[in-house]
Amino acid sequence: MHITALDTPALIVDLDVLERNINGMAAHCKQLGIPLRIHAKTHKVPEIAHMQIAAGSQGITCQKLGEAEAMVDAGIDDILIPYNIVGGPKLKRLTALLKRARITVAVDSEETATGISQQADADGCVVPVLLELDTGGGRCGVGSPQAAQHLARKVVAMPGLDFQGVMTYPSNPRAKSFLDETLSLLTRVGIPINVISGGGTGAEKHSKALGCTETRSGSYVYEGMTRIGNSGMLHPQRCALRVVVTVVSTPTPDRIIVDGGQKTFTSYPPNPYGHIIEHPDAKIYGMSVEHGHVDVSGCSHRFQVGERLSVIPLHQGMTSNLHEELAAVRGDTVEDIWRIAGRGRIK
Amino acid sequence: MHITALDTPALIVDLDVLERNINGMAAHCKQLGIPLRIHAKTHKVPEIAHMQIAAGSQGITCQKLGEAEAMVDAGIDDILIPYNIVGGPKLKRLTALLKRARITVAVDSEETATGISQQADADGCVVPVLLELDTGGGRCGVGSPQAAQHLARKVVAMPGLDFQGVMTYPSNPRAKSFLDETLSLLTRVGIPINVISGGGTGAEKHSKALGCTETRSGSYVYEGMTRIGNSGMLHPQRCALRVVVTVVSTPTPDRIIVDGGQKTFTSYPPNPYGHIIEHPDAKIYGMSVEHGHVDVSGCSHRFQVGERLSVIPLHQGMTSNLHEELAAVRGDTVEDIWRIAGRGRIK
Repeated sequence: MHITALDTPALIVDLDVLERNINGMAAHCKQLGIPLRIHAKTHKVPEIAHMQIAAGSQGITCQKLGEAEAMVDAGIDDILIPYNIVGGPKLKRLTALLKRARITVAVDSEETATGISQQADADGCVVPVLLELDTGGGRCGVGSPQAAQHLARKVVAMPGLDFQGVMTYPSNPRAKSFLDETLSLLTRVGIPINVISGGGTGAEKHSKALGCTETRSGSYVYEGMTRIGNSGMLHPQRCALRVVVTVVSTPTPDRIIVDGGQKTFTSYPPNPYGHIIEHPDAKIYGMSVEHGHVDVSGCSHRFQVGERLSVIPLHQGMTSNLHEELAAVRGDTVEDIWRIAGRGRIK
Repeated sequence: MHITALDTPALIVDLDVLERNINGMAAHCKQLGIPLRIHAKTHKVPEIAHMQIAAGSQGITCQKLGEAEAMVDAGIDDILIPYNIVGGPKLKRLTALLKRARITVAVDSEETATGISQQADADGCVVPVLLELDTGGGRCGVGSPQAAQHLARKVVAMPGLDFQGVMTYPSNPRAKSFLDETLSLLTRVGIPINVISGGGTGAEKHSKALGCTETRSGSYVYEGMTRIGNSGMLHPQRCALRVVVTVVSTPTPDRIIVDGGQKTFTSYPPNPYGHIIEHPDAKIYGMSVEHGHVDVSGCSHRFQVGERLSVIPLHQGMTSNLHEELAAVRGDTVEDIWRIAGRGRIK
């Protein structure tokens, strides 16, 4: 099928760029000597996760249990959920999923660990567990090596839990001393560490330097301005994801309106919203819910109603979460239509 | 079912508040003497649209063709789509939908009108059409009364189109003179005006004052900070929509983390994200994709992992667009679970 047969707004991925990004990160991690565990939250597409595993990723990461269920349904069998799983319905789903795949979860409190332990014990299974350390991110995670030691001893003593190690975000300068001291304190009380999971695209070197056993990288698969920033590197040769939109109005010589707005691109970050490949001088300066507002005063091209534009969105994960399908495109040919199976799985 | 049986994050609507908002706007418009055509983009739920019609709304408004299809599937039979419908696939869907319901569309260019005309003519149907006027919004719409007259004459001459009148956003100070002059110019060339559609919650008086034949209001149904602003009126007695979240981490005495972030609430507007009903002194100061970051330094309450909070989100339409289902709740009882049938219908 030719790409113009897709109705708009259409989310598409450039397969050449996607494959280059996947192979590039795989080679980068291999060269560094740090195993990769890709984060699927960026794309939420099982077919892409399988491509990443085929390129060498040792399993995947999902941010929510529902995303993990979608990936297990598609045959993925080794998933880390770096999230506190809390409450009866989710705990039952977790133990059910554990019968179908290796699922490791993170905890940062005795309450969360106790909930998982009780459910696992009741259901006769054992859940691999990592402790989340807050090495500077200021979100979840235990706040000190002493607190980590305290919680690890609790987890080790709970039935139904298999303490595997720790996870954190290693690029913070505080990470090394925090991690070193935690490992020392755990070793001192005889708790073995199998897994030290680091993460964040761009933090692969940090993960290696800190002695991590794996690094979680997600956004590299598409690339986009949330990581590249305004450095001028938001380039179609690096960024694989695009939203194809149609010009629906040309009300003034300076302004055109396209058929994608906040419901197509998300509203984060607020500006400049995206990069128009065909006309880099056209600037998306605003979005309402269903309209994109584009300043074309810097363009010599005269835009027509019905014309299509390819926009590199800024926040790939949030944009992917707004679409049901992803068209896999090579050149002008749609090679496949993939369901974004992990979309909207917030539970 | 008791509300605590819902897993989180859960989107819920307080039926008492919803009914009060629906009846209040119906009474307000009746008192003003301006017919109401509700905008369904805020909720995207057919059951709520039916409630609004039962309260007196003369049909509904949908922002995209796909939303209109979902509403026609649910038995709604009079829909305005104030959007330029462009391109073969959508034009075919439009004429197909027209065989099932009265669908009026807006146009602001000869190109858009020509596309609709040709498809309607080919399919043997007639599409009711409004001209969109840009009375100051700076988005779509013809830019002057003269341009409106010019385009109206074109539309009147095209086969398959039934020119019905004009639509705009009447609260701009420029609207009155623009509209008056447009009507005068159209009357002068013998083009009758059946419909003058005004819009925007809060603009009902403006619509009446400008002589509109209907007013499109959407956000009143839930109310939220996008309209109420930071005026301190974001109150559970006025705001019907809530997201129930669970505390998943209490890493420091000042900070708790809940299980809803940007994928649950959207990222617009960026701050303060939402209002926690049970603890108004707890401030949501940040969101990552799956986590809400809450500053509880102002609260005497000691939060526990597993505790639930009810958050009034800020942008009701965007938040609704992220959820599959809406739980209809009265007191602590879930009376119904509604599918958000218009969710994600961006095409």
